[in-house]
Amino acid sequence: MTERSTIDVSLSDIAKRSGLNSALVKYYFGSKQGLLLALVEEVLGRGMDQMEGLLTMEIDPVEKLKLHIKGIITVYFRYPFINRLLHHMYLDPELDTVVGERISKPLATLQRQILEQCASQGRIRPVNPTMFYFIVVGACDHLFFGQQALRIAFGIDGVDDDLRRTYTGTLIDLLMNGMLVPDAKPL
Amino acid sequence: MTERSTIDVSLSDIAKRSGLNSALVKYYFGSKQGLLLALVEEVLGRGMDQMEGLLTMEIDPVEKLKLHIKGIITVYFRYPFINRLLHHMYLDPELDTVVGERISKPLATLQRQILEQCASQGRIRPVNPTMFYFIVVGACDHLFFGQQALRIAFGIDGVDDDLRRTYTGTLIDLLMNGMLVPDAKPL
Repeated sequence: MTERSTIDVSLSDIAKRSGLNSALVKYYFGSKQGLLLALVEEVLGRGMDQMEGLLTMEIDPVEKLKLHIKGIITVYFRYPFINRLLHHMYLDPELDTVVGERISKPLATLQRQILEQCASQGRIRPVNPTMFYFIVVGACDHLFFGQQALRIAFGIDGVDDDLRRTYTGTLIDLLMNGMLVPDAKPL
Repeated sequence: MTERSTIDVSLSDIAKRSGLNSALVKYYFGSKQGLLLALVEEVLGRGMDQMEGLLTMEIDPVEKLKLHIKGIITVYFRYPFINRLLHHMYLDPELDTVVGERISKPLATLQRQILEQCASQGRIRPVNPTMFYFIVVGACDHLFFGQQALRIAFGIDGVDDDLRRTYTGTLIDLLMNGMLVPDAKPL
């Protein structure tokens, strides 16, 4: 998917590229849907494990929240196909529930727990965790999902490491500090 | 598209539903792509005109920025198919440039001008307008684009007026004020 910049890859393409025959791929994963699910769980599972590790670390919870956001963007950066694939799976009535249960829900739960740690230590104002989830995931997602707009409207051809860092820094700064100058009054 | 919750609508479906024959639809719009383009320009053009009106209004530019963000979410709310359609058009090599030039670029320019007004009056800290664009559009977009996740991971079935308002309020508050409690130190 990364090689071809599309999620439109058939089982026989995968079999060919991996040097295995497609019957074997089917044998292991049951179906193409089974393979896709194994793929997102493999890619996102590792990130999720790291994020879960965050929860119990003895560091400032605000740092955890920053690392969490940075982690989401890094996963999208490393696996540029992952969002498109998730959207695609969410539109498949045979996959939508399992994607929701195994991917979105654990991520949302983790994020809510980090927010609660921050709030309980008086470091952040309370925020609606559901709203926060869609704001953060949407913002992280769009740098990659909106790559056509990035190219055509801004003349930027793809996300490199510098852009990823700038984006992460800007997003974290906005979410944490906002952009208003305190005490500045309208003219 | 709203009726069927899908952008997968054929010219003959449209002809049928509108009571016109598909040759007439083709005569006016040239092709299905021509019709799609006319549709997004009609839907988004009005919103864009209103936003352009904002620029010259004699009000606090921070209020303009808030109205601008509110306006983006309202358009997505009224036309739930519009994002999916734009993504779809961006993937069509015959449409991507024209969508970028007529939709994304004017929106980005307008947003940058509002940000400049805010910064020049000392109301906001300078922010990278390109990063801001993707953060804001992605966040506004995701409440609607991520509706499957909303339903499955959060048990919320669609975006109603209350949810739209809560989302808009949370996003604007985060972008403006951030969530950190000032002067709170890590424990």
